[in-house]
Amino acid sequence: MKPFDNCPSADGLWTGLRRADAPTALAAIVVTQGLIRWFGPQPEVPAEFHALPRHDGGDALVTPGLVDCHTHLVYGGQRANEFAMRLAGASYEEVAKAGGGIVSSVRATREASEDELFASAGKRLESLLAEGVCAIEIKSGYGLSLEHERKQLRVARRLGAAYGVTVRTTFLGAHALPPEYAGRSGAYIDLVCDEMLPALAAEGLVDAVDVFCERIAFSLEETERVFQAAQRLGLPVKLHAEQLSDMGGAALAARYGALSCDHIEHLSQVGIDAMRDAGTVAVLLPGAFYTLRDTTVPPIAALRAAGVPMAVSTDHNPGTSPALSLLLMVNMACTLFRLTVPEAIDAVTSHAARALGLQATHGSIGVGMPANFVLWDVQEVAELAYWFGQRPARSVVRQGRVVV
Amino acid sequence: MKPFDNCPSADGLWTGLRRADAPTALAAIVVTQGLIRWFGPQPEVPAEFHALPRHDGGDALVTPGLVDCHTHLVYGGQRANEFAMRLAGASYEEVAKAGGGIVSSVRATREASEDELFASAGKRLESLLAEGVCAIEIKSGYGLSLEHERKQLRVARRLGAAYGVTVRTTFLGAHALPPEYAGRSGAYIDLVCDEMLPALAAEGLVDAVDVFCERIAFSLEETERVFQAAQRLGLPVKLHAEQLSDMGGAALAARYGALSCDHIEHLSQVGIDAMRDAGTVAVLLPGAFYTLRDTTVPPIAALRAAGVPMAVSTDHNPGTSPALSLLLMVNMACTLFRLTVPEAIDAVTSHAARALGLQATHGSIGVGMPANFVLWDVQEVAELAYWFGQRPARSVVRQGRVVV
Ligand SMILES: [Zn+2]
Ligand SMILES: [Zn+2]
Repeated sequence: MKPFDNCPSADGLWTGLRRADAPTALAAIVVTQGLIRWFGPQPEVPAEFHALPRHDGGDALVTPGLVDCHTHLVYGGQRANEFAMRLAGASYEEVAKAGGGIVSSVRATREASEDELFASAGKRLESLLAEGVCAIEIKSGYGLSLEHERKQLRVARRLGAAYGVTVRTTFLGAHALPPEYAGRSGAYIDLVCDEMLPALAAEGLVDAVDVFCERIAFSLEETERVFQAAQRLGLPVKLHAEQLSDMGGAALAARYGALSCDHIEHLSQVGIDAMRDAGTVAVLLPGAFYTLRDTTVPPIAALRAAGVPMAVSTDHNPGTSPALSLLLMVNMACTLFRLTVPEAIDAVTSHAARALGLQATHGSIGVGMPANFVLWDVQEVAELAYWFGQRPARSVVRQGRVVV
Repeated sequence: MKPFDNCPSADGLWTGLRRADAPTALAAIVVTQGLIRWFGPQPEVPAEFHALPRHDGGDALVTPGLVDCHTHLVYGGQRANEFAMRLAGASYEEVAKAGGGIVSSVRATREASEDELFASAGKRLESLLAEGVCAIEIKSGYGLSLEHERKQLRVARRLGAAYGVTVRTTFLGAHALPPEYAGRSGAYIDLVCDEMLPALAAEGLVDAVDVFCERIAFSLEETERVFQAAQRLGLPVKLHAEQLSDMGGAALAARYGALSCDHIEHLSQVGIDAMRDAGTVAVLLPGAFYTLRDTTVPPIAALRAAGVPMAVSTDHNPGTSPALSLLLMVNMACTLFRLTVPEAIDAVTSHAARALGLQATHGSIGVGMPANFVLWDVQEVAELAYWFGQRPARSVVRQGRVVV
């Protein structure tokens, strides 16, 4: 992948585009100084822009740059061997004995240097960027100590700078109980709230705070303690909620004005109503649903009826979703969760941006916003959801540069 | 994609490779005149090859080129709109009224020129080739008349020549009943057996013969008539068998020495035993299983116990599997069907080659075989199944040329 700084400027007049909402008429985009200056029907381009350098879109469909709003992209090692062992019939116990499970990612992340984490996550990031991702959330949560959570978040920031992509960092210290705190969950939450989060926030490494609220992870009460710590620091919260059971996490998160509740396979109507009232986005993660062969589909019809905005993300992580294509998640959201095509496209653009608090700069093509858009080699927008396993991006403009 | 004829020769000494079966030792491949001349541990490369031009594999994992052994790649139009309508709640009747379903693909295929079909299928083929596919089966079955089946098969042959990829053509005239034969299934099978197949075989357009044997398609008796016609012409047969119900098609196909039985979600033990005795390959199609949200998994354990070789393919088609990645099918075969990693890799290499009768030239790296192999940017072979949505091919050698 070409270094971002060597990619040509996207400034100029982009012609020969087709909009998803008006596919038969040609559209044009004017980019100046890396920002969208004008967007509209091609015959209406103001005269002042006619002399700008031209970029011929070749009748490509144009959409906003994609936004991947829930990832655990930075970690040491990978767990392909565990995947293979499970298929070969190994029990969870045997996998654990062979060093598998989340503790293996924690160990490998702790052992890895910052440069090693940067290199391995960078390779994965390149797969998503090539497809048209222009903003991405990256969580910590495999360090589980101040030193190693800091390392993960620093790598996330470095990835953003090196690749010229908007990165939102999320502190997920409350992802799992580190082995050295076994049986002392409360003490670990003390550490998260009183030491790790304040220190990392002071270093500017935390854009939002997340918790894995689940019977196998942290309780509702522990979750609330982390939310209170975030609130004291003025940081927005989000939640891994109701993936395996209805813990009431979504309603709690909504009370704290959460940006999003994620997974939500077991979300109740009470949770939906609370999310609607709080403006909280529902983040659907079909890659994990698929990998886990889950059968409980999130309550799509009820979310739709309530008007809760739905986003879709890769949930990229080494255990339950080693997914490296956001478009594949669009197909899975349609196929497995029965999202409509327009819902699935909004889910990886405008709604995903909103889940990150980035709606002013990402997820739509608006005048004054940074130039983030993708030209697709398809005839109609439904093809972005219909084909699967393809790479249809013809050109990607990210942060004002032509990067693909 | 660079024209095949402009791709550099792969002749020379390839070093720094790692084999899936011995990943810690370095291996080397010698290619001369487009053929594998030698393959073994790097320290044992015979002196006579030391002066050959070097290709540095950079410690990449090497596997045989991939083989996609069941596709309907050539067709007019696409059905993204139908996909979108279904998700928006349209009934099958409404979709049919809007011109959807297989008849829409038949109509669009009949209306398309040979050049149009070549261009649209070529774009899809490029997606598979970029990933490492070196041999592919392409079926007819959307023309359903002599003229239009011929057109599909001619396009398949042209694709093979233009892209430098091994194409096996399969005549699937008995795919569906064309509208002009509604209610006259027997008469259509007469046409298939007495006119279409002999004419197309005489033109050298048919490498194998297939039938869609199902309650919604053709009966066991009609299937056997097509097999007899194939047998008279000395052509091998294969079958779309037991996808929706146990029709007994697999046992019939085995009696005719079928290369493969494909889909086989409802395959019985009788069918399995017959396939084992006949050496027939079981072709698993997880992309269609996934798209149709099927819940009946093929009898993997019984196939494994019987020693029936299992292949995996995209089943690329516009209705039930618009899949454009064979590696994604590897992941789906593991995730949804619980194939082990070694089974899944064999399923897209050696067993897939056998399903096409190509085991002498494809699916393994053997001395004397054409150079078809892929260098992968992964540490261990399990990663090819574990990650999904990625494009890990670093280099692809196809028919003696470095094409990626
Ligand atoms: Zn997650
Ligand atoms: Zn098929």
